[in-house]
Amino acid sequence: MTSVRFGSGAIRSLRGAFEFPAGRPILVSSAEVLRLHGDSLRAAVASPGAAEIVIDDREEAKNLDTLRRILDAALSAGARRDDYFVAFGGGVVTDVAGFAASILLRGIRWYAIPTTLLGMADAAIGGKTAVDHPAGKNLLGSFHLPSGVLVDPDFLATLSARQFRSGLVEVYKAVLVGDPAAAKTLSGRLREVSESRGVEDALRAAIRVKEEIVARDPRDAGERRHLNFGHTLGHALEAQGGFRRLTHGEAVGFGMSAALLLSARFAGFPKDEAERLSRELAELAGRDLAAGIDPEDPVLWSALSHDKKFTSRGPVAVLLEAPGAPVLREVPAEAWKDALLRVLSPIAL
Amino acid sequence: MTSVRFGSGAIRSLRGAFEFPAGRPILVSSAEVLRLHGDSLRAAVASPGAAEIVIDDREEAKNLDTLRRILDAALSAGARRDDYFVAFGGGVVTDVAGFAASILLRGIRWYAIPTTLLGMADAAIGGKTAVDHPAGKNLLGSFHLPSGVLVDPDFLATLSARQFRSGLVEVYKAVLVGDPAAAKTLSGRLREVSESRGVEDALRAAIRVKEEIVARDPRDAGERRHLNFGHTLGHALEAQGGFRRLTHGEAVGFGMSAALLLSARFAGFPKDEAERLSRELAELAGRDLAAGIDPEDPVLWSALSHDKKFTSRGPVAVLLEAPGAPVLREVPAEAWKDALLRVLSPIAL
Repeated sequence: MTSVRFGSGAIRSLRGAFEFPAGRPILVSSAEVLRLHGDSLRAAVASPGAAEIVIDDREEAKNLDTLRRILDAALSAGARRDDYFVAFGGGVVTDVAGFAASILLRGIRWYAIPTTLLGMADAAIGGKTAVDHPAGKNLLGSFHLPSGVLVDPDFLATLSARQFRSGLVEVYKAVLVGDPAAAKTLSGRLREVSESRGVEDALRAAIRVKEEIVARDPRDAGERRHLNFGHTLGHALEAQGGFRRLTHGEAVGFGMSAALLLSARFAGFPKDEAERLSRELAELAGRDLAAGIDPEDPVLWSALSHDKKFTSRGPVAVLLEAPGAPVLREVPAEAWKDALLRVLSPIAL
Repeated sequence: MTSVRFGSGAIRSLRGAFEFPAGRPILVSSAEVLRLHGDSLRAAVASPGAAEIVIDDREEAKNLDTLRRILDAALSAGARRDDYFVAFGGGVVTDVAGFAASILLRGIRWYAIPTTLLGMADAAIGGKTAVDHPAGKNLLGSFHLPSGVLVDPDFLATLSARQFRSGLVEVYKAVLVGDPAAAKTLSGRLREVSESRGVEDALRAAIRVKEEIVARDPRDAGERRHLNFGHTLGHALEAQGGFRRLTHGEAVGFGMSAALLLSARFAGFPKDEAERLSRELAELAGRDLAAGIDPEDPVLWSALSHDKKFTSRGPVAVLLEAPGAPVLREVPAEAWKDALLRVLSPIAL
């Protein structure tokens, strides 16, 4: 199981937060994160002989080449089975470093210290590791739980507004799927929270939802799929934009916006509320970005059909009967397209 | 758990041997194996739409590039979560295909149909998947149990004498570690068996030993390390020869030969028997090949220190107190070298 430490300034008590293995830490991070927070991390790790592996943390670098760079560097540094990775950064860093930890020497332990809201709410929790492939997002990876996750909201101060908004989408997703009270508190206030950054309570709730679901279904065989709410179309939108035009959170924001409309149509989610939340999410994701999405693009619908949740029997989507009540439903491709068209044309809402 | 089917002609009832998932089989094999046995496999799989991925099955191709080729081909063929790999070939094919299965879409099911004695006795059983790295053998990989292993000894007929002898080393290793009665039956008869190919009983015993140990320790956290008897030095010898000069079985044969001498020195294995078995193994591995091994080569000892079983505390070796009684002992590097020197100089024995 993963141990999660949460708190402002938690980074300073890293050594005491978890029981680390006997070997050496191998730090994996990006140049930008190290520039901003490297000193506080190095002081906290305080371990001699630690290797530092710096990777490109842009989504387009989340691929087998970056994975290989980590593995090569770790083996060059003489990595052993009781060494461990400390992944320090956003979702790309934790996804790729966790994947590398899972296959280096057939699996060494790893610890995640997310520095983005997306990483804190989602990517660093739950042990889903991955890289992207030209055929689609997160198509290669493993389940490899971090031994510890340290969430220090102080790191959020250095995020750009866009990064913060993107992470807020995943916070909202988690509570919408698993904590209706927290969802109610957040609904209608997304813009306000993204400006004030007063996200700590909602973030705690989101982490709790994710931890509980992962504990019940670590291998994504059933209930855990609920956390993919908004991700089926979200991943396809990311792929369509070459993983550059939209952040993961923005793409998922549009995906959730569409999934809410589909929830009203196929799962009995109250229609007015679905439309209100759908609009709020599309606005959080960014109306201006919506203009860049071509709903007729075959790349989009091909990417959708590559989604890992699609079995050979057909497309399955996570929808909501109500906040806190996710269900799996088969949704025809045309219905996805209708929903996306409505998300992209504000007048129709 | 893995289901193992064993029997002459078993390939013909492949479809009924296991409960396959709903998706499509993705066949992974080599050109040579398909040339020899492709028709019987294709007839047995008898499933439309199966993709075939042909890889180079030489040890020097057991690397990240070959892994990537499998992943690219499977994703190009539109692989889904309920598709499954059928790995058909020797240890390289099952190691790499199993690894690919473990990280494709975060893990799909796979089935192994080993065609070599090495694969039947060892590589295909137990879910240790891997590729090699310039820093050492099997340094990247995962634990991913095949859902089924079909062992059809009919395939052994097409092995070269060298391939057969190499596999026999692993058969002998398994019974030496876990089935003293079967080890006694085989001791002194290795040359005879390698000529007659009458290995079926010993192979069954070896598979049983491996299955039982793997069931008790699937993740190689304790007892399973016993199966690495002979492999610490074996892997280093393979690396020294660039994975070309010696087959895996030959290298492990020399490694076991040395480990038996170390067992007499550090673990109380009866000295005369240790020397007799050590000599028999070195002869099975090939006295002529021994001449190509330079015991002074720093590459060899550097590779030894990269062994995955070495923790940051130091080298640990699997030794035997007696047949069927493996133990872990710290063995200094000089003792390894002494033992290897004795293996390589027949006069000293």
